[in-house]
Amino acid sequence: MVDILHRVGVVGSVDDVYKALDTIDGLAAWWTLDTKVTADGAIQFRFGEAGGFDMKVVETEPGKLVRWEVVDGPEEWIGTHVRFDLHQEDDFAIIMFRHEGWREVVPFMYHCSTKWATFLMSLKHLVETGTGEPAPNDVQVSNWH
Amino acid sequence: MVDILHRVGVVGSVDDVYKALDTIDGLAAWWTLDTKVTADGAIQFRFGEAGGFDMKVVETEPGKLVRWEVVDGPEEWIGTHVRFDLHQEDDFAIIMFRHEGWREVVPFMYHCSTKWATFLMSLKHLVETGTGEPAPNDVQVSNWH
Repeated sequence: MVDILHRVGVVGSVDDVYKALDTIDGLAAWWTLDTKVTADGAIQFRFGEAGGFDMKVVETEPGKLVRWEVVDGPEEWIGTHVRFDLHQEDDFAIIMFRHEGWREVVPFMYHCSTKWATFLMSLKHLVETGTGEPAPNDVQVSNWH
Repeated sequence: MVDILHRVGVVGSVDDVYKALDTIDGLAAWWTLDTKVTADGAIQFRFGEAGGFDMKVVETEPGKLVRWEVVDGPEEWIGTHVRFDLHQEDDFAIIMFRHEGWREVVPFMYHCSTKWATFLMSLKHLVETGTGEPAPNDVQVSNWH
């Protein structure tokens, strides 16, 4: 099993970052504008024709942790977990990010690692400046977008 | 053993990307301005007070591959390998990046994963626009810079 890892520091408080991870408005402002709650309580993230992901929130601890299980989306993602561990270091809210449980190293995993980095930078910009770069206005990293 | 993975697509040719990986001027224009060849033929990358890395070039194939061994730098990096595999997909030169051989998952690895993403985006910008964001003008991702 292999994981995608990132560490981003946001000038702000863990509570501000948590709000961007625990509310639909927050998530829509850095990941994708097309974010909503489904009938069965999962969070549905869509990226136009590219499809998207449904996440079940499996664990939250205000100001500390958000953990999701991927319940629908690309086959490689289903059953994997995405977690955001938060802690404060002076003026910085630190996000230790982990997308864990990939079954094998595929080109799509390389792509998702880079995309997660740019989306986490979008989250950083959102909290620091009030404006992120959620899809469809996300940073293009390649021909896979 | 765990790896850092990224996939970035650059609008341009694999030869242009290769030039940015195989020449001192190219490397200095996207990773760090303070790049030079040492007396024993390694490439020395420095980032001011943060220190830096010495890389031995262990394999190159024009337009296809650059592979380095880390011979000096932070203890976690020494003995690891950094490789850039290149191929063309229509208008995009695709970089499959792998920093492999980390002995354990430490917070510094999370940080380096995010920094590699932003430096690879700097490489993309360099080839596409003529201007990258090498240190000391690199994108700050956290309190660790």
